[in-house]
Amino acid sequence: MRTVIIGGVAAGMSAATRLRRLDEERRITVFERGAYVSFANCGLPYHVGGVIPERSSLLLQTPASLVSRFALDVQVQHEVVDIDAEARTVTVRDLVTDTERVEGYDELVLATGAVAEPGPSSAGVPTHTLRSVEDVDRVIAVLEEAGPSPRVLVVGAGFIGLEAVENLLARGARVVLASRGAQVLSPLDREMAAPVTAALRAAGVDIRLGVTVIGAEDGSVRLSDGTTVDADLVVEASGVHPDRRLADAAGVRVGSTGGIVVDRHHRTSTPHIWAVGDGVEKQQHGDGAPVLVTMAGLANRHGRAAADDIAGARPHVAVPALGTAILGLLGLTVALLGRNERELLAAGVRPRVVHTHPASHATYYPGAQPMAMKLLVDPATDQILGAQIVGGAGVDKRIDVLAVAMTARMPASALSQLELAYAPQYGSAKDPVNLLGYVAENVATATTRTLQWHELASALERGATLVDVRSEQEHETASIPGAVNIPLDDLRVRHDEIPDGPVVVHCQVGQRGHTAARLLAQLGHDVQNLDGGYRTWAAGTAA
Amino acid sequence: MRTVIIGGVAAGMSAATRLRRLDEERRITVFERGAYVSFANCGLPYHVGGVIPERSSLLLQTPASLVSRFALDVQVQHEVVDIDAEARTVTVRDLVTDTERVEGYDELVLATGAVAEPGPSSAGVPTHTLRSVEDVDRVIAVLEEAGPSPRVLVVGAGFIGLEAVENLLARGARVVLASRGAQVLSPLDREMAAPVTAALRAAGVDIRLGVTVIGAEDGSVRLSDGTTVDADLVVEASGVHPDRRLADAAGVRVGSTGGIVVDRHHRTSTPHIWAVGDGVEKQQHGDGAPVLVTMAGLANRHGRAAADDIAGARPHVAVPALGTAILGLLGLTVALLGRNERELLAAGVRPRVVHTHPASHATYYPGAQPMAMKLLVDPATDQILGAQIVGGAGVDKRIDVLAVAMTARMPASALSQLELAYAPQYGSAKDPVNLLGYVAENVATATTRTLQWHELASALERGATLVDVRSEQEHETASIPGAVNIPLDDLRVRHDEIPDGPVVVHCQVGQRGHTAARLLAQLGHDVQNLDGGYRTWAAGTAA
Repeated sequence: MRTVIIGGVAAGMSAATRLRRLDEERRITVFERGAYVSFANCGLPYHVGGVIPERSSLLLQTPASLVSRFALDVQVQHEVVDIDAEARTVTVRDLVTDTERVEGYDELVLATGAVAEPGPSSAGVPTHTLRSVEDVDRVIAVLEEAGPSPRVLVVGAGFIGLEAVENLLARGARVVLASRGAQVLSPLDREMAAPVTAALRAAGVDIRLGVTVIGAEDGSVRLSDGTTVDADLVVEASGVHPDRRLADAAGVRVGSTGGIVVDRHHRTSTPHIWAVGDGVEKQQHGDGAPVLVTMAGLANRHGRAAADDIAGARPHVAVPALGTAILGLLGLTVALLGRNERELLAAGVRPRVVHTHPASHATYYPGAQPMAMKLLVDPATDQILGAQIVGGAGVDKRIDVLAVAMTARMPASALSQLELAYAPQYGSAKDPVNLLGYVAENVATATTRTLQWHELASALERGATLVDVRSEQEHETASIPGAVNIPLDDLRVRHDEIPDGPVVVHCQVGQRGHTAARLLAQLGHDVQNLDGGYRTWAAGTAA
Repeated sequence: MRTVIIGGVAAGMSAATRLRRLDEERRITVFERGAYVSFANCGLPYHVGGVIPERSSLLLQTPASLVSRFALDVQVQHEVVDIDAEARTVTVRDLVTDTERVEGYDELVLATGAVAEPGPSSAGVPTHTLRSVEDVDRVIAVLEEAGPSPRVLVVGAGFIGLEAVENLLARGARVVLASRGAQVLSPLDREMAAPVTAALRAAGVDIRLGVTVIGAEDGSVRLSDGTTVDADLVVEASGVHPDRRLADAAGVRVGSTGGIVVDRHHRTSTPHIWAVGDGVEKQQHGDGAPVLVTMAGLANRHGRAAADDIAGARPHVAVPALGTAILGLLGLTVALLGRNERELLAAGVRPRVVHTHPASHATYYPGAQPMAMKLLVDPATDQILGAQIVGGAGVDKRIDVLAVAMTARMPASALSQLELAYAPQYGSAKDPVNLLGYVAENVATATTRTLQWHELASALERGATLVDVRSEQEHETASIPGAVNIPLDDLRVRHDEIPDGPVVVHCQVGQRGHTAARLLAQLGHDVQNLDGGYRTWAAGTAA
């Protein structure tokens, strides 16, 4: 038996090593186009920034170590250029000798990954992606050539683009960030992306939104808004799409997303061919729609599962993808999963939305950091549809807790009952995730009616009275135009100052507003609480 | 309608404020024996240590703030001394005027909490618990009186005792730690407690195990082993038990644990009386046995749920308790949930056990910290029965992930499929929790047979060959007596050096051992992998 695996990084190498552990006899060949296998692709930007100082740290395995430990036949700088699925052969080009040969397989694993979106040519300025060890070498060479304060244009404001920005800043670069989108980090909703934009600006990044690169010459890049950016280097991070060339060659079915279609055992439409990793379409949690999720964790897991299936071990059925993702940026942690509000509305789902601003741990213990959380819930089923968190410490923990709850299809209101670990340096007796559950339940049961930040303007136009229940000092520091200030602790005695008709109350983060809304509702007012309070409104309406 | 709540800290105050938010009209009275309500009881030790420098930070609410915001009638220094459940009255003693009066209720909430185990008197040395703001004041007064390097005996090596130790050390105290148990932190299994013992010793703590205090005179405490400890202060942290006096007075049913018995709506056996918090028996996750879990999170949650029930809101049914707990100690984080191996064996369950030693995040990114994990699984159902984690960064995250998985009754093998957030500064593409799932599944499917650290000696006695598959250098640094060293990368060619008969392989943490076990099993050997490798064995056999 011979298994051929095309692609030697996350998915491919997980498949290869698992297959060996299950089957000592099998011949296992890995063809990798690049010069390196099993490298730390998620660490590449951090070597540019010097956070990972040793280039060798990026190389997790070498072909030699894989031979001695796993008896794998690893052939780097070997590109598979064709597949004959009938004959079960691959045509391989040795990129060093530039010769081709044909080799047979019993099973074939496509771990061919994704390729960068081909942005418009910016010939005239060195332009590189950050997807391979070789890319990193080239980027560092350009930066060193350019001297102490290089000018860099980063194209693309997604995860990879922003990781590039952080690391370029760490090297002393002056950075312009260009994105065709209307905001940075488009997987986030607008009000959740606002702190990211603010952090980038505070770090001196020049952000250009709604633009594309249309050309470059003599060290100057032309953007679609007519401006130019002088740059020593362009880092291209506009996005990736599945590399479907070999799938097409093999006649393997490709889906509407451009990714290879596989069943729950990672088998393609063509017998004896499996596919795993970034090149493969996943099934979205919730509605089961096909999606692309280019995450190392899924790639590793699916590679391993394909090996189980090939070896005849107990099949590991793929579970729907949440798209859990996390980013460290300039001291912020940004994390998300599932779908955002824009995507849900586009799919015809009007989610129940909850914004909170809890502290990472008990505020009486030093060092607590604020975070902003957003939870999106299916109003029909109380299922969690998505979440976004931006803050510092503890963001990674809360997104993981939500990932497990979502995987288990736990209703949003059950989040309040989770028995999470509490000591004051780690959390709160009512953890931020518990609080999300409480608020979601209060909304679901109409214990409190909430209003979203983007609904406030029209509510005021329709004549609602806006009451700020924060302290006088908070109100004077910054307030929403048109709000009258009645501090919560005075509200019971002063509520008759509020005119008849609809009332919107707000506080700083939503919690005092909830108490105020409960009080006013019981006193006979028609009241809504501004979800997430002043902070969410301010983030959503920030320029 | 009048609701009387006895006890004004976590559970009682959560009930009171929620009840007000649900019902503006109701009269709500809180009687609190102490001088403070709603104080940060989990923060008390940290004020002793100066980590929380301001005493006022411990006071989350005052009676005045609760009046203005929630219109609560809060009476501190008022002790309820009797309950007449027939007449629906309580007898209250005003501790300041030392007068008693009788007041009526429509609903009564017992949030009477737990009281410290009465240790044997150590009159002759000032002895205090750390359960109230007044306790903290007294402890600090004694320490200040004693001068710059006070001598303190801490009695009890559980969570509170160890928090006291850390904070006393922070104040410059010389600390003796005495426990009647055979190890520190008895909720942990022996091998998991070893790093805690080591950290305490490294910090200069004199640990005395298997002893009790039998008396004290003239600044010297006598222990049951015949030794004496000179001390300026004894901190009593031997444990707590439910305060059942008022429950007994009211004729409320108390269970085998000594805690008040309630139904899933927190109703006691007596009409119109609810009970919440540390004084109440909980139902254990898994087998549903009655247990005592004295955690602030549960107290808050159950107080709120009781208020919902009293107000006729949608009833919140109590979920079984996991006993999730966490401790910060001298740079370590210790976390656990469910039952430990000793408890399971005592209950007749022989769990499947997995030990791992992952890093907090990708090791190629700077700052990764090691952790030791233990997972206990029901071999019949694959349900998670318990977990213990000791390490630094990221321990709190992983225990919370496991808490959600356990709550959702997710099988252990499904941990491998969790889509947790990954970037190299936060985790690994195969997160430590994913790895637990992979190992659990490999054991469940007999892909690898494992041997526990405490089973090794008898396996060797029965003639097994122990093979250390680590590098020569690792083997020479520290090894298990009797092990022969064949590094993993040589094993494929050198395996015929291993004699016939049973073989146990081990590496440092278990991962290379797994690869070695798979290889040797396929080559025809009868092989087991030492679970958790050298590290778990060394921890389990440490003195």
